[in-house]
Amino acid sequence: MLNLSNINVNGDWINWGPTAEVAEFHQKMFQGFLAQTPAKIREACYSEGRLVHILSAEHFDLSFLEKICEVTNAARRINKIPDAPLKKLLRNKSVLNYFAQPSSRTFNSFSAAESLLGMRREEVRDLRTSSAAKNENDRDALRTQSSYYDALVFRNSCNYFDLFALWVMQTSQRPIPIINAGAGQEEHPTQALLDYYTIRESSHHRVDGKSFAFVGDCKRGRTVHSLAKILALHEDIEIYFVAPDEYQIDTTTETYLQDRQVRTHKITDGLNNLPEIITGAVYMTRIQDEHDQDKRTKRYDPRFIFTEKMLDSLPKDTVLMHPLPKREEIEPYIDYRQDKNIMLWRQMRNGMWLRTALFAHIFGKDDKILDYYHSCKQSTAPKPL
Amino acid sequence: MLNLSNINVNGDWINWGPTAEVAEFHQKMFQGFLAQTPAKIREACYSEGRLVHILSAEHFDLSFLEKICEVTNAARRINKIPDAPLKKLLRNKSVLNYFAQPSSRTFNSFSAAESLLGMRREEVRDLRTSSAAKNENDRDALRTQSSYYDALVFRNSCNYFDLFALWVMQTSQRPIPIINAGAGQEEHPTQALLDYYTIRESSHHRVDGKSFAFVGDCKRGRTVHSLAKILALHEDIEIYFVAPDEYQIDTTTETYLQDRQVRTHKITDGLNNLPEIITGAVYMTRIQDEHDQDKRTKRYDPRFIFTEKMLDSLPKDTVLMHPLPKREEIEPYIDYRQDKNIMLWRQMRNGMWLRTALFAHIFGKDDKILDYYHSCKQSTAPKPL
Amino acid sequence: MLNLSNINVNGDWINWGPTAEVAEFHQKMFQGFLAQTPAKIREACYSEGRLVHILSAEHFDLSFLEKICEVTNAARRINKIPDAPLKKLLRNKSVLNYFAQPSSRTFNSFSAAESLLGMRREEVRDLRTSSAAKNENDRDALRTQSSYYDALVFRNSCNYFDLFALWVMQTSQRPIPIINAGAGQEEHPTQALLDYYTIRESSHHRVDGKSFAFVGDCKRGRTVHSLAKILALHEDIEIYFVAPDEYQIDTTTETYLQDRQVRTHKITDGLNNLPEIITGAVYMTRIQDEHDQDKRTKRYDPRFIFTEKMLDSLPKDTVLMHPLPKREEIEPYIDYRQDKNIMLWRQMRNGMWLRTALFAHIFGKDDKILDYYHSCKQSTAPKPL
Repeated sequence: MLNLSNINVNGDWINWGPTAEVAEFHQKMFQGFLAQTPAKIREACYSEGRLVHILSAEHFDLSFLEKICEVTNAARRINKIPDAPLKKLLRNKSVLNYFAQPSSRTFNSFSAAESLLGMRREEVRDLRTSSAAKNENDRDALRTQSSYYDALVFRNSCNYFDLFALWVMQTSQRPIPIINAGAGQEEHPTQALLDYYTIRESSHHRVDGKSFAFVGDCKRGRTVHSLAKILALHEDIEIYFVAPDEYQIDTTTETYLQDRQVRTHKITDGLNNLPEIITGAVYMTRIQDEHDQDKRTKRYDPRFIFTEKMLDSLPKDTVLMHPLPKREEIEPYIDYRQDKNIMLWRQMRNGMWLRTALFAHIFGKDDKILDYYHSCKQSTAPKPL
Repeated sequence: MLNLSNINVNGDWINWGPTAEVAEFHQKMFQGFLAQTPAKIREACYSEGRLVHILSAEHFDLSFLEKICEVTNAARRINKIPDAPLKKLLRNKSVLNYFAQPSSRTFNSFSAAESLLGMRREEVRDLRTSSAAKNENDRDALRTQSSYYDALVFRNSCNYFDLFALWVMQTSQRPIPIINAGAGQEEHPTQALLDYYTIRESSHHRVDGKSFAFVGDCKRGRTVHSLAKILALHEDIEIYFVAPDEYQIDTTTETYLQDRQVRTHKITDGLNNLPEIITGAVYMTRIQDEHDQDKRTKRYDPRFIFTEKMLDSLPKDTVLMHPLPKREEIEPYIDYRQDKNIMLWRQMRNGMWLRTALFAHIFGKDDKILDYYHSCKQSTAPKPL
Repeated sequence: MLNLSNINVNGDWINWGPTAEVAEFHQKMFQGFLAQTPAKIREACYSEGRLVHILSAEHFDLSFLEKICEVTNAARRINKIPDAPLKKLLRNKSVLNYFAQPSSRTFNSFSAAESLLGMRREEVRDLRTSSAAKNENDRDALRTQSSYYDALVFRNSCNYFDLFALWVMQTSQRPIPIINAGAGQEEHPTQALLDYYTIRESSHHRVDGKSFAFVGDCKRGRTVHSLAKILALHEDIEIYFVAPDEYQIDTTTETYLQDRQVRTHKITDGLNNLPEIITGAVYMTRIQDEHDQDKRTKRYDPRFIFTEKMLDSLPKDTVLMHPLPKREEIEPYIDYRQDKNIMLWRQMRNGMWLRTALFAHIFGKDDKILDYYHSCKQSTAPKPL
């Protein structure tokens, strides 16, 4: 979640209106909304005790996480049962996938989850195609788009688009649940959820006391920020941020973690033998140089490459993760290895099931999935991971 | 509907063929088609007494309008009933949405309606992507596209694309119903239908004797032309066209209305106190400057802005409408008001239901909706608007 | 199928990796895969005796062709029966349509087939949109995309993309069936299947002993290559390649056909009276000048135009075919003729049904379609073509 007082609504690309007067008017209304405390905003994301707007990892708590992970497990298993009720669960609901930034993984994963639940799906891949031609302001554009749907999933390069969307919903007469699929450099809460689910499953539901290494771009990797905040909900967590100075974790996030008793370390000289002592996960990331002013791709520092040798020396239960896309930060031969603790691709498919659970949660159908799962003892149900 | 004798088929962008000889051949065939009277063309839009090609507001009559509005009401209400048959009504039908001009509202509205009826939907958002690369002529392109579907919805910048599409259908061996979702500057018949539905509902089905104000761009607003023609079917209608000279209503449309006993007025000096005496609807529009040669957006004349003060002085049953997108022609504070006679957003959602009714009509399933609605006395059915 | 030893993996546009070292590593792995014999690769396209990867017309045999055609016939007929089981057949399967080249016909045809079977469909129309921005290599991109689906349909300008895709599947832990919807200039196996189906139906299942004329661009028309290879499976086939020298059939394909006892002829001086002696089909094609370096469209040689006079002199059972899009190679008046042996548009719709049968085959549901068809004697079932 952004530091609300820092938001410069004039400085960003949002189209506030066709004239300076109109723009200023709406900006002032929005700033009134931002004047609330973060706690108030978190509260605004709940409806009848249920988290319905998925905007930030800071809004999650352990009971929410546990429930979502259980529903994820149940959903993936009952889907194998012929004529299981998954496809009928949300067949009267519709969703708009509003992706103003390129995405393949996240987009396809949401789309697959929506389809598994029988939802009607629509997509807008370019925010500006339709409205800009006629100079419609983005408030009207979003309100229009949301009018035909029951939920909105968005990705946007604007840092505060999540709050903008929440505000538009709250000031419309037909608010619908909204899901942040990546806004700006700050947060990517659903990726964090699927990463957490992957960690929880591979650690046999014992996350307390584990250590983790985040490697690569700790500064701008939005999944790093979101996942670390979730891990901080557990007891006795140790996190190593492994990156050169220029890509090291920011002070705000580090302080957030330390305030919650996470033991943090900054490692700036390379991976070295670190993987051997990690008990949870080594989480690799690519350098997010699409955010750089200077557009030349810099060579990745080889001291931070995860090598085949490191894979061979990983503790038995420690997993190798990467939110993908990857570049050169993992040695290519690892692509052809079949080791069980390489989680890259399984992690990705987990996302589809996690998002299925998330929609079920938002629309209050998660217990239906759990009930069905517990009631059926079908031999066709696949075993746990 | 265009003045057929005015169509210059050479002057427009339609790809008639790869060589001058081929192009000339097809143009001659098309001109043979255009040589028919408007009455003949209207007749060609009917099949077994049913209007199946929705091309122009001039083709509607009061009995069609009344039926469509009733089906719209029935459809929106039975959709709330669990397992209502709406989704199965057209599940064996497919439709192509062929939008060569930018659109978000109309496109999403059609798409939602199609989905509510269980139709298979496909979209082409750029007419030229596929065929142009291989220099296919547009006649073949349209015939190809239509081959896989049971209905065609199109938007196009070409003024006579509606007639072109009708001709292609009639000379193919597999004609399918076609729906004009906005061709050129002339017509937008489905928007006019949803506007009419909104007016009819908010006037408690008493449109005769009402007065209306069209404000903004009366010259090029295709919804203004189409809606005014529909209103002209009623008795004792009064219409004020409120716009500066350069955006005033054209003589052809004004004559059309006067021939049908509509009392028309041109107001060129601003809205002033006019809203206070309007008994039907104040219909605002933006300046359609995307049609201008000169690409600079001109400042909207403030005398034609609908103000909060005007809202407060509107007669009780008079509604404020706008086809959207809007710009500065309505004061921004009105966005945050909740008054019942602000119809902007309800109008938009009405479009989804109106188009649902329209597809049901085209495929002869409208009576099924009415029958189901009348047969069920379920308490879950929502009340009328 | 390509001559494997000729593939220059460095010379093509595939993104092999972010650095020279990574790229070289993966290229070496791929070249190991290519070192297999064509027979081994054909074998790799089968799973439990069933052809599941549809890559090349060279992989088909007569029993496969006969089965597919029968299933096609059955599928198109049972679809007319209300509540026929077609739409439920593959409702638990999903498919990605991965089209990196423009296409309308093939894309829509696949999409319609998938929908008729109730499959979940997703599309990527530009390979580079998502992955390129973050410099993901194409191996990861394809593996990612395929992760969420049960089948992959692709079109690509890269000549060896079919083999690349097969290799990616084989080295992933979740291989899915892949279908070549047109890769490079070499092959278009599903178009060849629908053309074959059209020929088989119009010849009343007697293809042996027939003669065929391929006219236009025999050199680069990928459907010409694929269809001729399929026809070569029959006895006593005669093929005329009718094209100027520069567009004549290549020696590799001609030798392939002659090795299988096809009597081939090259005709370079025009169509003349040839149609009168063709007993199977006159198969017209356009000049594929999108492959030319020189981008100027050349005028089509009028001696190779199919004229109305030729249509009138065609033997009774001989059909006129064209894979479309067409340009000037068929006289325009023929567009307005209704003769039964003009197969252009029926051929196109056949493609939808052929592809329906193909998906049913791949997922082992083809016998379900045949069984249902044979079991029902409903009077509503339409007659054979």
